[in-house]
Amino acid sequence: MNTDLFSRPVQLKNTVIDDDFWNQIRELVRTEVIPYQYEALHDRVEGAEKSYSIDNFIKAGKVVKDLSQGKEVAVYPTDKWHYDDKNAPEGAFHGWVFQDSDVYKWIEAVGYSLTTHPDDELKAKAKEIIDLVCNAQLENGYLDTLYIINNRNAVFENLKDFHELYCFGHMAEAAISFYNATGERKFLDTVCRFADLICDTFGEDKIKGYPGHEIAEMALVKLYDVTAKEKYLQTAKFFIDERGKKPYYYDKALGKETVEDNYHYNQAHREPRHQHEAIGHAVRGVYLYSGMADIAKRYGDDELYLACKKIIENIINKKMYITGGIGSTSHGEAFSFDYDLPNDLAYSETCASIGLIFFARRMLEIEPDADIVDAMEKALYNTVLAGMSQDGKSFFYVNPLEVLPEASHKDSRKNHIKTVRQKWFGCACCPPNLARLVSSIGEYCYTQNNDTFYIHQYIGGKVYADKAEIDIHSNYTEDGKVSILVSSKESFTLALRIPKWCDTFSFSHNAVIKDGYAYFEISNETRIDAHFKSEVKIIKCSNRVRSNIGKVAVTKGPFVYCLEEVDNGKNLQMLSLDKHTSFFVEGENIYADGYREKDCEKLYSAWEEAKKEKVKLCFIPYYKWANRGENEMTVYIRIE
Amino acid sequence: MNTDLFSRPVQLKNTVIDDDFWNQIRELVRTEVIPYQYEALHDRVEGAEKSYSIDNFIKAGKVVKDLSQGKEVAVYPTDKWHYDDKNAPEGAFHGWVFQDSDVYKWIEAVGYSLTTHPDDELKAKAKEIIDLVCNAQLENGYLDTLYIINNRNAVFENLKDFHELYCFGHMAEAAISFYNATGERKFLDTVCRFADLICDTFGEDKIKGYPGHEIAEMALVKLYDVTAKEKYLQTAKFFIDERGKKPYYYDKALGKETVEDNYHYNQAHREPRHQHEAIGHAVRGVYLYSGMADIAKRYGDDELYLACKKIIENIINKKMYITGGIGSTSHGEAFSFDYDLPNDLAYSETCASIGLIFFARRMLEIEPDADIVDAMEKALYNTVLAGMSQDGKSFFYVNPLEVLPEASHKDSRKNHIKTVRQKWFGCACCPPNLARLVSSIGEYCYTQNNDTFYIHQYIGGKVYADKAEIDIHSNYTEDGKVSILVSSKESFTLALRIPKWCDTFSFSHNAVIKDGYAYFEISNETRIDAHFKSEVKIIKCSNRVRSNIGKVAVTKGPFVYCLEEVDNGKNLQMLSLDKHTSFFVEGENIYADGYREKDCEKLYSAWEEAKKEKVKLCFIPYYKWANRGENEMTVYIRIE
Repeated sequence: MNTDLFSRPVQLKNTVIDDDFWNQIRELVRTEVIPYQYEALHDRVEGAEKSYSIDNFIKAGKVVKDLSQGKEVAVYPTDKWHYDDKNAPEGAFHGWVFQDSDVYKWIEAVGYSLTTHPDDELKAKAKEIIDLVCNAQLENGYLDTLYIINNRNAVFENLKDFHELYCFGHMAEAAISFYNATGERKFLDTVCRFADLICDTFGEDKIKGYPGHEIAEMALVKLYDVTAKEKYLQTAKFFIDERGKKPYYYDKALGKETVEDNYHYNQAHREPRHQHEAIGHAVRGVYLYSGMADIAKRYGDDELYLACKKIIENIINKKMYITGGIGSTSHGEAFSFDYDLPNDLAYSETCASIGLIFFARRMLEIEPDADIVDAMEKALYNTVLAGMSQDGKSFFYVNPLEVLPEASHKDSRKNHIKTVRQKWFGCACCPPNLARLVSSIGEYCYTQNNDTFYIHQYIGGKVYADKAEIDIHSNYTEDGKVSILVSSKESFTLALRIPKWCDTFSFSHNAVIKDGYAYFEISNETRIDAHFKSEVKIIKCSNRVRSNIGKVAVTKGPFVYCLEEVDNGKNLQMLSLDKHTSFFVEGENIYADGYREKDCEKLYSAWEEAKKEKVKLCFIPYYKWANRGENEMTVYIRIE
Repeated sequence: MNTDLFSRPVQLKNTVIDDDFWNQIRELVRTEVIPYQYEALHDRVEGAEKSYSIDNFIKAGKVVKDLSQGKEVAVYPTDKWHYDDKNAPEGAFHGWVFQDSDVYKWIEAVGYSLTTHPDDELKAKAKEIIDLVCNAQLENGYLDTLYIINNRNAVFENLKDFHELYCFGHMAEAAISFYNATGERKFLDTVCRFADLICDTFGEDKIKGYPGHEIAEMALVKLYDVTAKEKYLQTAKFFIDERGKKPYYYDKALGKETVEDNYHYNQAHREPRHQHEAIGHAVRGVYLYSGMADIAKRYGDDELYLACKKIIENIINKKMYITGGIGSTSHGEAFSFDYDLPNDLAYSETCASIGLIFFARRMLEIEPDADIVDAMEKALYNTVLAGMSQDGKSFFYVNPLEVLPEASHKDSRKNHIKTVRQKWFGCACCPPNLARLVSSIGEYCYTQNNDTFYIHQYIGGKVYADKAEIDIHSNYTEDGKVSILVSSKESFTLALRIPKWCDTFSFSHNAVIKDGYAYFEISNETRIDAHFKSEVKIIKCSNRVRSNIGKVAVTKGPFVYCLEEVDNGKNLQMLSLDKHTSFFVEGENIYADGYREKDCEKLYSAWEEAKKEKVKLCFIPYYKWANRGENEMTVYIRIE
């Protein structure tokens, strides 16, 4: 690693977002998603699956109170992934084993929102919930409502399948967000007490376990960055170093011994530093890789960084949909093998693309890399945004690249492919995850070090950098034009990322172009105009991807486009793009020349050149699909 | 129905097969498959999953003896689909709930084999096993080893999931086969006692249940044909009439009530006579439809026949692979929706294609139909034959149209797709089913009535028809030439099926051509030479089948061809067929001009016309694939 290239993100409070494209999305999150989720956490949304989240904290708080008063407290089994009115007694924990994390993700999003948009009423609501959370902490610092309600003596017994360390991670991220927004320490102190317990519990000469669902690693690093308590960093490192060592901890915990590699689903098949391929449950994966990058940077660990590099290259070059979606199989919500990217069976979970953005940002802190930013951008503008409806009221968990409603309804291989967004998930990871990313997007646009300020993503607004104030006027998503006004008293280098999709770009000032970035020496007030000409492009996929042979996708700027039945009629597979077409852009739509094969009902017949008619094709941005009712959709189309 | 068109198959003993193509396959079944399966039933094949079949009959026989001596007999639970050394006590039943049927299918195959190829040693072995079976019959006629061993008081309690009536069906078919071969009644009488019990148990004013896995319907009709006992026919009709009536019998048995349609998997969602689409578990389906056709014919039931017609048309026109495979989803081994025929996820069970042949033959007995024979032929020469290796020692259960070994190993969505045939299945339906079909193939070639003798399939040999002796010299699979020598003292009509794949045919005599058959008036000794010119054809699939858009398959005569990696290199998806190619046939191989795209490792890049080189493509018959080790295979190839 070249430490000269290290950089840090800008703190959220030092960023202001003001961007025609993003303002409306962020407003939706603030005015629709966050309030809606507040109601959902309280089980007050009619027709939505029950969350039980707040209820669990109230129950756990009562347990803690009863214990402190020496009262006897009931014990319930902790033997399932999900508890509900049918399989659990009324007094017991309800919901998924990771249900607490929904509350934390909501608080985290609220913290970000308060940072950039103060709101006393919202803050009061968050503080009420934080009080419930803090009241549920055991005297020793432990805080997970499943075990507090059901069985205090069973904590940390099933690290592989249950989610105490995962919930801890989200708790830490939430507390940090709320502390950064308000300066109020109560929640942060609560988290630190739990973190202290974790540091006292896990390590060399202690329990040599590690999280089944990763996130604690990067959360502990964040907590270290805020508190400067070295042991948090050390425990994060321990979790990464210990993971996947043989004999496996999970084997020992389960009283068995596996000789062959196992626990791929949890990325615990071998030590992370020896992992060179993205494997297993995709969200777990990118959360682990984020923590690995954090530790690699903070410890100057070249071997661990090399693993991160190999993994992110493997994702970007062999395992990522053009939409920035990752995790191509629903079995285990997991990465599949190289180049296995089926369009109609995709899993491509919204959360996985969010996690990829976390991982990408951490890699950029080690070394700027235009390929990584490109992947981050693909994920952000396509899969992540597709996760939410245009009215902010419904969400996709799974983001396919081809949808036939009949298949989703009748073919159980595809029943994970929803044709319209859903209101709320019992397993509600995606909506609050999306809310927290969108509310904190400022943390993903820039990084800086003593010499250089990097602009990786062009979102309009203002940044208070270490050495300058930078105003960004962005028309990036429209025509690729960006104006950057720098007010600086010190000289520094401004690095502007050149999008990979852009063949023609120009700057108002001379720049040194290197590895996908344009470098400008700034010494005083300067206005740099950049133009990243965004043209409609026809993109092909590697012919190793079997499902896309002979097909192409259409893109413009950061956006991948798709065809919907509502614009193009049924049987989208019968359409093809004319390879000589020109494109006509109108608003967000792109029109092109194409063909439609004549419908052939006969199942088998002698081959003849297909009969087809000329048609106008209408493409819309992928992130806007399924906002006009249930219909067919495809990203890829044949070209001829 | 037009009863003038009704016809009957020729009894197996009146057929002799002597055909270069079929002799070797039938010899393999006789000399390899039947002996191998005998060993497998006895659990004497090293490395193969245990069958437990013979063992169960021995155990059940002991129970029967103990009961007759007034001894107390143990009771074990009947609560699983599969019992083995790990989950069942030593004295209890072992294997699948339908394990008995493997023994019956073996006896059935032996019966057919003895009919055409007497073999005292084999007959003695079969009689030994038959003795074991007969000894296991309860005094009241009941005979299913699961319940006899585990719990005599629980019989017929779970018709939906357990397989007593299914095993009975196979038992009846076996006993009839052995009786027809040897004239020995012992096994047939045993079966009749069980059949009598079934007739006494099920019916109006009795238990109104019906089989969860169909076959008893057609078996009872066969038993009626042999014994002339009317009640067998009536009970078969009862099973079909009662099936799917609401409120559902299965609901009542399980103590619940479903309002919406249910039990599609078992084709019990509605009354068979109101079913117009092939649905649910494919093998169950075609077995039911076979029984429906039997009953429709014997009762002159037009409504039921219409249902059969609609269903077979639905299969042939919308739900059948070009290889005659049916059941395109592994979930429930089931039919999917219309035109959903993915190549790489196919289930296409060998047994389902065998069942389709059963159904097709019964439909031909009602009315000759060249489309139905065509489907039967596709199934026989492609999927069924592909089910067995060239050495008769290993078998496919699942018959995909596209295989990438890496996907089968790494993608759990495809772990039902085996890349090489397996030695023996614990759930061993396919190998013995294949053995019984191949051994009795003479029953599927011809039907006759008072006026007409139909030759549906051209397999060389001799037939002793009601009105003539017919010698068939067939080179059908090679060049489509067939010579038919008829020795007859009576005049009759000879009807020769004209294959659907054949555009150019000629006959040595004048014929009336009608609906895919050529009709000849025969009045004395005549030799008719027919030539069905088999040319290599390029076949396209309906463009409603999404996975085959832009692709074609190559066929010649009844055979569908495929490409294998061993002949054409890796990444078969990069190949395409030159639309102007001529074809060169050498032995069973077909060579053609094509292209191979240059391998493009880069996942996403600007589209440009694919770089490709000219290559010679080598196609082999589909049924021969996977005989040269594990490798890629595809039936469909892009055309350009």
